[in-house]
Amino acid sequence: MLPDFKGKNVLDLGCGFGWHCRYAIENGAKSVMGIDLSEKMLTRAQEINKLEGILYERRALEGLDYPAKQFDIILSSLTLHYIESFDTMAQNIYQWLTSGGYFIFSVEHPVFTAEGGQDWIYNKNGEKTCWPVDSYFIEGKRNTTFLGENVTKYHRTLTSYLNTLLKNGFKIKKIIEPEPSPEMLKEIPEMKDELRRPMMLLISAEK
Amino acid sequence: MLPDFKGKNVLDLGCGFGWHCRYAIENGAKSVMGIDLSEKMLTRAQEINKLEGILYERRALEGLDYPAKQFDIILSSLTLHYIESFDTMAQNIYQWLTSGGYFIFSVEHPVFTAEGGQDWIYNKNGEKTCWPVDSYFIEGKRNTTFLGENVTKYHRTLTSYLNTLLKNGFKIKKIIEPEPSPEMLKEIPEMKDELRRPMMLLISAEK
Repeated sequence: MLPDFKGKNVLDLGCGFGWHCRYAIENGAKSVMGIDLSEKMLTRAQEINKLEGILYERRALEGLDYPAKQFDIILSSLTLHYIESFDTMAQNIYQWLTSGGYFIFSVEHPVFTAEGGQDWIYNKNGEKTCWPVDSYFIEGKRNTTFLGENVTKYHRTLTSYLNTLLKNGFKIKKIIEPEPSPEMLKEIPEMKDELRRPMMLLISAEK
Repeated sequence: MLPDFKGKNVLDLGCGFGWHCRYAIENGAKSVMGIDLSEKMLTRAQEINKLEGILYERRALEGLDYPAKQFDIILSSLTLHYIESFDTMAQNIYQWLTSGGYFIFSVEHPVFTAEGGQDWIYNKNGEKTCWPVDSYFIEGKRNTTFLGENVTKYHRTLTSYLNTLLKNGFKIKKIIEPEPSPEMLKEIPEMKDELRRPMMLLISAEK
């Protein structure tokens, strides 16, 4: 899924603790710009993933502005479902990329975000009956809680993600809906629930 | 979604009553080959959609064999989820298409086929609570009933559909998850349930 990082200028949108920034540098990237809104996350990133060539910056993704063709690879891991306009983001990313550059990102899967509650349906015995899908074509805000905090996410259909990329000029190179490996299923039996519904969507697109 | 049919040689896999064959000829196609396994459907197609340039043939899709670059456009409407190997089908279709040719098809959406029962979850009052998703990553047979008949369909993930196309050399041009229009929603109030989960997936791919 990931391209060759050797000599590449990389931007990581929503870098969190900086693990992907580290990965890029360790795989030969020339420079990595890690952007996140969370001061806490960036402080931790500076502690555990501070390497030469990585620059962390606290910014909202919506306010970013770079010259055209500034980056060869733009990454974003589980961040863009917090952004209201994927179209604006995709347009900007296309501009910031060099020709032949890659935009590789993961988001929560539309099947995971559609209904909004982000929990299974349970039967009387407390067993998981199925994963609920609802309001699939009603895009927009979903208010949910994560570790006791209120969180706003944006649901988009699969069509929105893919056609927004195509419309903005990207070529779709690969799509992955990650599922647990046989080894993982053997070691962590609870993982078998992850075969029941897709939770994430990974897309690789080329300018 | 549909390309220009003028002067094109068209193949329709699972042509049913021949409506798409008619559409292609009426929009300028040079020839249309309509394939279906159902004698009943083809008899009806011969009655209502018999036009010069259309040839209907009763064949199983798995047994088809054409010379390379025989067709400019290959269509398939709600048929390929009855086929066990989409990979083999996609390989063949790629061979049969001219360079720059189009493969445009619809299938039942993975969200629609995953759980297998193909019905909503209802509450005690008989109201639709949500659409169930289960066994998403367990691809293969789903036995369901349609109009009292047992029907075998094959569930595939979204990843399978898209990456099988990419792997076989296709470029993905457009994806649609059809949803009812505002006019339809106004005229047929029950249609609003069709906003709750995706039922179909349409893909346009270019060789």
